[in-house]
Amino acid sequence: MKPVVLNGSSLTIEQVAAVAREGAEVTLCPEALERVEASWKFLYQVATSGSQKVYGMNTGVGVNKDQEITPEQYREYNRNMLLAHCDGIEPFATEEEVRGVMLVRLNNVLLGRTGMHPKIVTLFQEFLNRRIHPLLPLRGSVGEGDITCMSLIGLAMIGEWEVYYRGKRTAALGALEQEGLVPMELGPKDGLSLVSTNAVGAGLGALLLQDLRELLDTADLAYAMTLEGFQGSVSPLDPAPYDYRPYEGQRKSMEFARKLLEGSYLWNSQEAQALQDPLSIRCSPHIHGALRDSLDYATRLLEIHLNSSDDNPCILFEEGRIVPCGNFEPLNWVLAFEMLGIGLSHLSRTAASRTLRLGSPRFTGLPRFLTPGDGRVHAFGTIQKVFCSLDAENRHLANPVSPDYSSLSEDMEDRGNNTPYIMLKTAKMLDNLYYILGMEMIHAAQAIDLRKPPRLGRGTREALKILREKIPFLDKDRNLSLDVVCARDLLRRGKLVKEVKKIFA
Amino acid sequence: MKPVVLNGSSLTIEQVAAVAREGAEVTLCPEALERVEASWKFLYQVATSGSQKVYGMNTGVGVNKDQEITPEQYREYNRNMLLAHCDGIEPFATEEEVRGVMLVRLNNVLLGRTGMHPKIVTLFQEFLNRRIHPLLPLRGSVGEGDITCMSLIGLAMIGEWEVYYRGKRTAALGALEQEGLVPMELGPKDGLSLVSTNAVGAGLGALLLQDLRELLDTADLAYAMTLEGFQGSVSPLDPAPYDYRPYEGQRKSMEFARKLLEGSYLWNSQEAQALQDPLSIRCSPHIHGALRDSLDYATRLLEIHLNSSDDNPCILFEEGRIVPCGNFEPLNWVLAFEMLGIGLSHLSRTAASRTLRLGSPRFTGLPRFLTPGDGRVHAFGTIQKVFCSLDAENRHLANPVSPDYSSLSEDMEDRGNNTPYIMLKTAKMLDNLYYILGMEMIHAAQAIDLRKPPRLGRGTREALKILREKIPFLDKDRNLSLDVVCARDLLRRGKLVKEVKKIFA
Amino acid sequence: MKPVVLNGSSLTIEQVAAVAREGAEVTLCPEALERVEASWKFLYQVATSGSQKVYGMNTGVGVNKDQEITPEQYREYNRNMLLAHCDGIEPFATEEEVRGVMLVRLNNVLLGRTGMHPKIVTLFQEFLNRRIHPLLPLRGSVGEGDITCMSLIGLAMIGEWEVYYRGKRTAALGALEQEGLVPMELGPKDGLSLVSTNAVGAGLGALLLQDLRELLDTADLAYAMTLEGFQGSVSPLDPAPYDYRPYEGQRKSMEFARKLLEGSYLWNSQEAQALQDPLSIRCSPHIHGALRDSLDYATRLLEIHLNSSDDNPCILFEEGRIVPCGNFEPLNWVLAFEMLGIGLSHLSRTAASRTLRLGSPRFTGLPRFLTPGDGRVHAFGTIQKVFCSLDAENRHLANPVSPDYSSLSEDMEDRGNNTPYIMLKTAKMLDNLYYILGMEMIHAAQAIDLRKPPRLGRGTREALKILREKIPFLDKDRNLSLDVVCARDLLRRGKLVKEVKKIFA
Amino acid sequence: MKPVVLNGSSLTIEQVAAVAREGAEVTLCPEALERVEASWKFLYQVATSGSQKVYGMNTGVGVNKDQEITPEQYREYNRNMLLAHCDGIEPFATEEEVRGVMLVRLNNVLLGRTGMHPKIVTLFQEFLNRRIHPLLPLRGSVGEGDITCMSLIGLAMIGEWEVYYRGKRTAALGALEQEGLVPMELGPKDGLSLVSTNAVGAGLGALLLQDLRELLDTADLAYAMTLEGFQGSVSPLDPAPYDYRPYEGQRKSMEFARKLLEGSYLWNSQEAQALQDPLSIRCSPHIHGALRDSLDYATRLLEIHLNSSDDNPCILFEEGRIVPCGNFEPLNWVLAFEMLGIGLSHLSRTAASRTLRLGSPRFTGLPRFLTPGDGRVHAFGTIQKVFCSLDAENRHLANPVSPDYSSLSEDMEDRGNNTPYIMLKTAKMLDNLYYILGMEMIHAAQAIDLRKPPRLGRGTREALKILREKIPFLDKDRNLSLDVVCARDLLRRGKLVKEVKKIFA
Repeated sequence: MKPVVLNGSSLTIEQVAAVAREGAEVTLCPEALERVEASWKFLYQVATSGSQKVYGMNTGVGVNKDQEITPEQYREYNRNMLLAHCDGIEPFATEEEVRGVMLVRLNNVLLGRTGMHPKIVTLFQEFLNRRIHPLLPLRGSVGEGDITCMSLIGLAMIGEWEVYYRGKRTAALGALEQEGLVPMELGPKDGLSLVSTNAVGAGLGALLLQDLRELLDTADLAYAMTLEGFQGSVSPLDPAPYDYRPYEGQRKSMEFARKLLEGSYLWNSQEAQALQDPLSIRCSPHIHGALRDSLDYATRLLEIHLNSSDDNPCILFEEGRIVPCGNFEPLNWVLAFEMLGIGLSHLSRTAASRTLRLGSPRFTGLPRFLTPGDGRVHAFGTIQKVFCSLDAENRHLANPVSPDYSSLSEDMEDRGNNTPYIMLKTAKMLDNLYYILGMEMIHAAQAIDLRKPPRLGRGTREALKILREKIPFLDKDRNLSLDVVCARDLLRRGKLVKEVKKIFA
Repeated sequence: MKPVVLNGSSLTIEQVAAVAREGAEVTLCPEALERVEASWKFLYQVATSGSQKVYGMNTGVGVNKDQEITPEQYREYNRNMLLAHCDGIEPFATEEEVRGVMLVRLNNVLLGRTGMHPKIVTLFQEFLNRRIHPLLPLRGSVGEGDITCMSLIGLAMIGEWEVYYRGKRTAALGALEQEGLVPMELGPKDGLSLVSTNAVGAGLGALLLQDLRELLDTADLAYAMTLEGFQGSVSPLDPAPYDYRPYEGQRKSMEFARKLLEGSYLWNSQEAQALQDPLSIRCSPHIHGALRDSLDYATRLLEIHLNSSDDNPCILFEEGRIVPCGNFEPLNWVLAFEMLGIGLSHLSRTAASRTLRLGSPRFTGLPRFLTPGDGRVHAFGTIQKVFCSLDAENRHLANPVSPDYSSLSEDMEDRGNNTPYIMLKTAKMLDNLYYILGMEMIHAAQAIDLRKPPRLGRGTREALKILREKIPFLDKDRNLSLDVVCARDLLRRGKLVKEVKKIFA
Repeated sequence: MKPVVLNGSSLTIEQVAAVAREGAEVTLCPEALERVEASWKFLYQVATSGSQKVYGMNTGVGVNKDQEITPEQYREYNRNMLLAHCDGIEPFATEEEVRGVMLVRLNNVLLGRTGMHPKIVTLFQEFLNRRIHPLLPLRGSVGEGDITCMSLIGLAMIGEWEVYYRGKRTAALGALEQEGLVPMELGPKDGLSLVSTNAVGAGLGALLLQDLRELLDTADLAYAMTLEGFQGSVSPLDPAPYDYRPYEGQRKSMEFARKLLEGSYLWNSQEAQALQDPLSIRCSPHIHGALRDSLDYATRLLEIHLNSSDDNPCILFEEGRIVPCGNFEPLNWVLAFEMLGIGLSHLSRTAASRTLRLGSPRFTGLPRFLTPGDGRVHAFGTIQKVFCSLDAENRHLANPVSPDYSSLSEDMEDRGNNTPYIMLKTAKMLDNLYYILGMEMIHAAQAIDLRKPPRLGRGTREALKILREKIPFLDKDRNLSLDVVCARDLLRRGKLVKEVKKIFA
Repeated sequence: MKPVVLNGSSLTIEQVAAVAREGAEVTLCPEALERVEASWKFLYQVATSGSQKVYGMNTGVGVNKDQEITPEQYREYNRNMLLAHCDGIEPFATEEEVRGVMLVRLNNVLLGRTGMHPKIVTLFQEFLNRRIHPLLPLRGSVGEGDITCMSLIGLAMIGEWEVYYRGKRTAALGALEQEGLVPMELGPKDGLSLVSTNAVGAGLGALLLQDLRELLDTADLAYAMTLEGFQGSVSPLDPAPYDYRPYEGQRKSMEFARKLLEGSYLWNSQEAQALQDPLSIRCSPHIHGALRDSLDYATRLLEIHLNSSDDNPCILFEEGRIVPCGNFEPLNWVLAFEMLGIGLSHLSRTAASRTLRLGSPRFTGLPRFLTPGDGRVHAFGTIQKVFCSLDAENRHLANPVSPDYSSLSEDMEDRGNNTPYIMLKTAKMLDNLYYILGMEMIHAAQAIDLRKPPRLGRGTREALKILREKIPFLDKDRNLSLDVVCARDLLRRGKLVKEVKKIFA
């Protein structure tokens, strides 16, 4: 696996996933390190000369901004500041998640606008490459900077907190020692530099966007399988009308579905098909495509953030200036995630609707609830309640939460975005969707097996094969809750669709 | 501990808690058992004589209601039916929760309207008293009957699923054997009798109402402590104006707060007090009281349900009739829980507001953020983000979800309530409130210790003492996330307030 | 029409409607007037003697509470105070609404806790009886006291604003003169006494509860008509199962439906009926009943408010005390209205579902979309979009809004309820429901006319007759938007159901 | 004013506004008319030859799609179809709105994918240019095609409905005659061609985007005025940090604010300024910028729609094919509007927060509530409730509604978006924002007048001048509700900001 080279300006969602999940090594671009060094030197010189009042360096933070901090107080002040910011609560991030978060923060500081001590910068790199993963609480931030959570990464860096290391939860100091690393001593502004960032929200968000991209492919696959089980019309996959409504997302979903259905009996059976199918089926490429459009927007905005500085103040060492700013305000990509949540509710309802239609003889010509026998096998009747209750949950989770903040710190901090919670609720929606799409595929597979069409698509045939290895045809009633979990596990993180895609490689 | 005698008509919220959480033994009233016997006998006679078409007995269920089930198919049909309903998914109920659920179902059938086989009825009792606790999934029900979840209790009863037993997750059959119990064989309608009930929602709901009652006492205590830390005005605790606005809830909260503050310096310090305090503080008894009013309504409705039959059809053995009905529709108490959710959001914001005010010198005359020293101790600055982010989460969870159902089973089941999910989200709100009120108490205690008033109330003094055993005065910055967890644990399930109440006994 | 006698303690929702809408005369109980007099005298003596600091009397209000107001400033101060509170914005209340609001405020002050000048008290009575109706803005209040709106009634009383009078919008002074009334001069605390009340929310709320009671009867009627059009099963109307689930609301709806269906063919046609109907139809009495239960709760709480004092401070002239209090906090009935909103969303979806089922041959055996002919008449196909889009609107309006307040007045006013807006959104839901139930009745009537059953119920027959006078059978396509408006007008404010009820008188 | 030339592929938001609001003339590009002609000819030939089954032409629509329509039935069938779709309800569109809607539909059909009769196409043009404006109901569509509303434009075109014409509501036939126009006779598919489109949602949406662009400029202006009233720090307007977080929106807002503040005293008064201002003020460019980013996304997507065909089926006359498709699915831009709604809630809260801060001496050094005198003038105390209650309303309106659809037409139409309602609620939010920003400017102007700074910015000085012509300095309490309306009228549709911009021209 190729290392990921960080320079502060080219980090992608895919790279975040590669480092966080697949353990890709991280290297730092020399020019970036020079910027980091220059930025810190300039800051240190200002700090010791006292020539300028700098927020969080020689002043307190928040409403305490009017208090002076003298040089001899730096070390203790910055340790205290870290401690005072350690308020985040459970759940703790997974190791993958904390890697994503650290990576984002590391790349941000490489722009040289933070004034972070270079040793801390490289310690981030060490933590990633040596797999030292601080316990990172995911709640307790209002998402206008995730200061209450990020502080605990800082705490681990000075050797005072716990980390996941070599498969265990252990004292940070011990892990540092085992790796021959020295705990940091904090200098001017380092406390602030460690905590003042939206890296929790952005790190989780980057991983979610990666998941979502795979989820949309999975949704296209579920749709394609449904189409074969349903014996649906392929006219919505005719590329021509897309030319007269040229949205990128719907075209992508249409093209992927065509690919999956290459060679399918559907292309030859128009006669037998209904003139038009229910909207949930007919419009699937457009609905999935709408999500793709939203995803592209979210990706574009978040990738700008990944390669930005969200520090305040902004260190302009080239000009010899330290400028207070509002670069920590993440609203634009927060709004994109709120939009994605609503879109996911549509995706969820659409998949649920398609699955309901698969159980209906009026549309399929197959037995009610896809029962294999004479009606004494109940088959897929009550399971409708399962995917529809998860869909209701998704509807609930789709409600926005970013505007629901309070005015804090004597009204100095009268803004918030609840960014980490948005990521948590979105992750829950994705998990629910693995279940829902899993149940759709269980239906589609059953319908296909009942219908026994002459020829499946290249992709759908492969998907059916893999699914059937885990979940056999339902010939008599059995405990479906086990099948449901099985299908969800097969779909998580795009596992199934990635397998299927291999045949096109 | 006194056993709880069940007769189908007198079960209370407190009794559910006693059985579910404290392991109280369950005994069944003989008259109730006679009703159960008579109900089953009548049903069995109808079933074998075939004199009448009965939904779910000699017909299928849901849209399959037009299919006939013959007597020789009963056993297999009912087992299949159970299996076909086993779709519920994670999380699994705690042992306490599954006890609550089984208890509710047991009491419901004692009215004799179910026609359940008497052996199944007593098996519910055995499961409770011998502590055999089937794995019960809590998701997957749309809350118009929790059939997809309850089925798995039934499955355990026929020896085919898993249970928690003597501290372990184990095969149901093994547990039955160890207790000398025989797995059930199912007769006519038994499948339906096992699954067709709102017992998951109602059982979880009963435990929540118990928790909520204690939470409101806890909130009153937090308010009383805040009042002392704040040196607030006690005029809102003057009973006279309550006579001219005679709501029960607010009177109760006012009286409990007076009791907790008995002997406090506040009663003698009017001079020093502000003419009026901020509304969040001034109106606390009214706000807590509003929750008490809502809680009373929810309790009244849910207790009617606990002592009702939510079966369909309704077995009227006395009249020789089996009547299809809509008694499984739980909307009225579902609405009460939706109301409670919104009320909890108010409670949450109010506690958060009081806590913010405690950090403000403008109101308290104490140092900013209750810092003990000279401002280099940050104290309770960033912690504001923690309780306010949980408050935002509560606002999100307070959004209703009951109307968001889909039309299922070919439109035969075009209703839903999402009851179990409502209980899950309400439980999450309660847990968040333990954190939030815990953080309020941390603030109040710090304010009291900084203020050093001459004399605390009888109740608040005790509370402070207990709190300080776990969480010392903050004299320098420390990792507050540990204190926060500690305070929450102290408040969960009314632990602290129950301790405090002992001094009044 | 009998006059309504006010005494501060017995005002009912019905009486509010009688005065507001039917112009019932208002008389004041002498004992109440004595209390008013005593209350004012006590206050005036305190004010002139300056023996005590009283909020809003010899101090400013809100955060200005620390400023002293001297006796010679009273008149100007109180006029200024009124003016400073005049911020409310459109829409203006209807004349009926402003009557309801003034009545509520009048009854509140009769408890003698306000210290309002007796001449102002009787001026409220005069305004009601002489039909002088100040322009009352309905927005601009956060519902923690509707001070920004009520001020404009006060302004009219001192002759400086506009009123509706004898059918015209005119200057208040002119109307006063025409009635031989003298504009008020304000004394101590009168400004506060005029504005500090939740009368806008409570007055609108009282009228809504009246409307809702009639709406629920209308919904029962719609359901009964649907049952006949649908040839539905009457088993859900069998009273016996209700004994085993004894909720009052569902029993009431069941009994009213039975009454409306007295003599119907449905009671004799069980053979032909489905064993069970779709849930929306089967559970209608339970769903409507759930609303009735919620309505009873809201009514009980709001009627306590109507007969309470929500003044702060509370004048205890008997004890010679003036006590600051939190009696203006309306949360408990606000929560009840939030619950009603969610309940209305269920009612709305249920009516929509029943209507969809009426269009479905699978259930009715009637032609698709109730078309009278051969399919070239489209009949009730696209109209489904109309009631379902209004239902979606209702779902949106059902979202809570009470917890979404900001912290005002330098955090002194850190509470809110958005009460008037809640009433506005609830009123919108009711209006949408007149449309939706109107469309249900149009369907039901068409189904009945197509089915031609031998005999209708006593009540439903009458309803059909009245409906058919306005809206003929659809024998060919026509502009249905006109029928829809017509049906809605017939249902508004319970018009149709009141007509139908006459036959039972 | 230049005519707008339509060709089906270059229509912009600005052009929609120009035609709808400023009455720009519409001309049609000849190539487009040729496509229209070719499309219709091909369709007509297929229709009369009967060579192919075409949805909505020789078949019914929706679930009636399996019924055959013969050529001799075309005229009556299409008229009936129009009639059967006429179900929309109040409110009716304004004349401007109906122009926007007709324009969008007209441009859509110019792509030649509709097969609409060329005479109908030119009749759209005539209606626009001769200002014949059919009564267009705005409710009753689920937004998956606005068929229930668009039908009434069609009805007017065949002379059977009402229009606004020369300032009056009058019969369509009369207006046609007065203009020498002949009512249409409908041919094959014309009914469907008239109704099957999202033009209501898209037309309203286009006008909203235009309004929103101006609103954002207005918000920047309000922020700039607040900054001067507040004596805020200009460091957030330093362009350098924006280079390290290169989002377009925030840069635009920053640059506009700089322009407005050109020459302001603020640039020279850094000494006197706080190191950092409250977040609502500090982050304004970033928050407004986030809305700009969202707006750009919505604009990009909607403009693609304006220049697309959302017809089903899609007429591919060049290939001799008629293809069923899902091009009517508007989800992607619907999601963008849901996002905008949430963004508007942030904008609303931010403006409210800034305004609250302006009333606070702690931040401004000015008198509490910007009172001009000694505290006996209440000034801007209660007005806080007004903008905060509108802000709460905006929070409520920001809740999504698009996923809340029902499954219609026997599950053939199991999708919806509630597009027109989304536009209505967004329009309401904009109107509320005119009020809110108006109140902010009232505060800012008062603060500036109290502070008397040496020199205002070029733009803000002009804005203050214009504002003061309508709303004088508050030197004593007055009925502020009149000022509030006045300010809102000044801000509507960007009136004030457009005036101010003239000085830069």
